[in-house]
Amino acid sequence: MKLYSYFRSSASYRVRIALNLKGMSYDTVPVHLLKHGGEQLSQMYRTLNSDGLVPTMVDDDAVDGQAVLTQSLAILEYLEEIHPAPALLPAAALDRAFVRSIALSIACDIHPLNNLRVLRYLVHELKIDENAKNAWYRHWCESGLAALEVTLARDGRPGKFCFGDTPTLADCCLVPQIFNAQRLKCDLSAMPTVMGIYQNCQELDAFIKAAPQNQPDAEA
Amino acid sequence: MKLYSYFRSSASYRVRIALNLKGMSYDTVPVHLLKHGGEQLSQMYRTLNSDGLVPTMVDDDAVDGQAVLTQSLAILEYLEEIHPAPALLPAAALDRAFVRSIALSIACDIHPLNNLRVLRYLVHELKIDENAKNAWYRHWCESGLAALEVTLARDGRPGKFCFGDTPTLADCCLVPQIFNAQRLKCDLSAMPTVMGIYQNCQELDAFIKAAPQNQPDAEA
Repeated sequence: MKLYSYFRSSASYRVRIALNLKGMSYDTVPVHLLKHGGEQLSQMYRTLNSDGLVPTMVDDDAVDGQAVLTQSLAILEYLEEIHPAPALLPAAALDRAFVRSIALSIACDIHPLNNLRVLRYLVHELKIDENAKNAWYRHWCESGLAALEVTLARDGRPGKFCFGDTPTLADCCLVPQIFNAQRLKCDLSAMPTVMGIYQNCQELDAFIKAAPQNQPDAEA
Repeated sequence: MKLYSYFRSSASYRVRIALNLKGMSYDTVPVHLLKHGGEQLSQMYRTLNSDGLVPTMVDDDAVDGQAVLTQSLAILEYLEEIHPAPALLPAAALDRAFVRSIALSIACDIHPLNNLRVLRYLVHELKIDENAKNAWYRHWCESGLAALEVTLARDGRPGKFCFGDTPTLADCCLVPQIFNAQRLKCDLSAMPTVMGIYQNCQELDAFIKAAPQNQPDAEA
């Protein structure tokens, strides 16, 4: 596997966690989102990923030869299908839906609003200042995670992790989102369930190895 | 099945299409996003869906009794698992990833930026005017769909629909997004592949029945 990735991209971070949990080896191809006008927007990268977003995964050993995959959650589902153990989705359909709904709450309702291109539009097109930009960031992050806290706290299924006592796709999405939230100084004090799960994840090698600061393209 | 839905919500529209394609009957429970301060934000609705977003699906015939499901794409995957025919995902893992990547491009990278709550934040908190709001809407919609046009046009797999000649989850997401784009007068003139697929979908009863104007809570 080759993973086109940026160390701080939370969508890339999700895929790194899943690859590590499944014990699949991969090579990182760094795509610098800030240098050279954004390498993700280069014509070369866009031949792989027309959205101009990271990550992109290239599976050199796919059924019909080399295959290019985009969208982090589609990549996670693909890894689950081609390499089922350890499972990152539960067996029962309702439980699978629960895990996916947590992953999607983060991937659809929190993360896209705080993506680099969106923050850039706010600053460059709408001319909002640094304070308003940070308030925007924290608003979506805090309100989204507060809703997730309610979901996790009132459901019987979370345990050490979002579902039971082994990590799932939901945890692959949660940890990068908390990393972002902490970097932007969001208030996470009223989220004991979310933060307990986050801490449990941080004890696993698969999550530690996937962290931004441990990537080949990490910067201070 | 009960579907808590708003006629113009594109996430609800996706689920309505899938239920219709699979020939599954359901009752609509209207949730008015604008009246009564937003019914999706009521305490009652939030006991079902802590995100305060539509849709929510209640499966009265689930394995362990009544089950509550949230997040449209998690619901689509659930429907696919409990009611596999007709299939809305292809058989091969790489093809499934392709279909999911299209659905996710729309569900993560276009739609969340143009959601009601986001447009409200832009107007009420950031004080942008109507023109700037509409420009924001069109920017994300047009740039996202332009990237999707490239993806679909250069891949060998799209046919009458996003994947081959039968509808998939990708089409369930595409059609509501085009409905929104047309409502906000986005320029779709340079997207022949996307619009061809959209037209093909519009010929199927499942898509026609799911359209906003054909819902019990439709307004002029």
